[in-house]
Amino acid sequence: MRLRRFAYAVMVSSWAPDARERLETAALDLFVENGYEETTVAQIADRAGLNRATFFRHFADKREVLFGGEDVLAGLFGDAIRAASPDATLTGCLQAALVAADVAMNPQQRAKAAQRVLVAAANSEVQERGLLKHARIARSISAALRERGADEITARLGAELGMLAFSIAVERWMGSDDDEPFVVHAAAALRELNTRAAQLDSRSRR
Amino acid sequence: MRLRRFAYAVMVSSWAPDARERLETAALDLFVENGYEETTVAQIADRAGLNRATFFRHFADKREVLFGGEDVLAGLFGDAIRAASPDATLTGCLQAALVAADVAMNPQQRAKAAQRVLVAAANSEVQERGLLKHARIARSISAALRERGADEITARLGAELGMLAFSIAVERWMGSDDDEPFVVHAAAALRELNTRAAQLDSRSRR
Repeated sequence: MRLRRFAYAVMVSSWAPDARERLETAALDLFVENGYEETTVAQIADRAGLNRATFFRHFADKREVLFGGEDVLAGLFGDAIRAASPDATLTGCLQAALVAADVAMNPQQRAKAAQRVLVAAANSEVQERGLLKHARIARSISAALRERGADEITARLGAELGMLAFSIAVERWMGSDDDEPFVVHAAAALRELNTRAAQLDSRSRR
Repeated sequence: MRLRRFAYAVMVSSWAPDARERLETAALDLFVENGYEETTVAQIADRAGLNRATFFRHFADKREVLFGGEDVLAGLFGDAIRAASPDATLTGCLQAALVAADVAMNPQQRAKAAQRVLVAAANSEVQERGLLKHARIARSISAALRERGADEITARLGAELGMLAFSIAVERWMGSDDDEPFVVHAAAALRELNTRAAQLDSRSRR
């Protein structure tokens, strides 16, 4: 254990550019190894070769270290919707948002996402924070749609549909054996949701 | 303060049938008066004329006292969807769920809902717990839709639409001056969402 920590600290020593990412990686590893509750901020900082003060410069609390990517996503989604063609349909805006997210959905993120699912499954406080982040990303989508002139109900519907497509796509992307990029899963999920949204007044049975 | 507490305790003394409701009312009053963080479980129990042990028989923690109604709603929604006509459309199922919720949406609940909005606005832990409850109600809807034979995507879409209609309806019901019953707001919200869901491929601008 001590040796491993030492090796890790050397590996990510001062030349390592990104303290934030080191802390995230160390935290996820420790949460999976020892449990979320049992892991302290001091242990996370130690594993990352940093100190507690550095941790708290990057994250408000222990839960927050799990959700750094969510703030990035909220920005990517909002920017992509604002940048979409003025003629874009609501679906087109959501599609643009999901395509923009693809840059954040690399193999390292896929591994981290799988670790996070494990941690969240065992801890309802983590689930709660995840839902708060989810709600913030949804608000970023609805705000961007409103800026384009969408009315309140359309903007909120778009945000829910976009987040549902995103969630379904992430689940499939994490669960699939092949290396299909995230954006392929996202496009499929959005298409399937659209088909069903057009048939709300069809019978609920198949 | 002491006199007020005494009067309250007499008012809701041992003949009062519902310890749970007394605790909820006392908690909301104290949260609004003194702040959520500043209020202890002992103070809530005291205000309700009960003791801490009774509190913890009814609620797992302080946050939980705010969300008793959510478990009721999850049951009402699920039961109504299961009981809907076999020929009901997805919209018909959601409409049935929202109609069933109406029994829980009385004037006392409206007052409590308004208090809860104040408490949640000032405390992100309360917001997080609210989102967890919201997610549980959504799961109750999607599970009931799946039992009717809806596929996974349809069930999840239905849950998000139902919860969005519910949220919009609650906001309007709380904010309106007239005494329009909840169910009228709910039907309108669901109708407006349906119209927009049918036009996802129209331009996002109005």
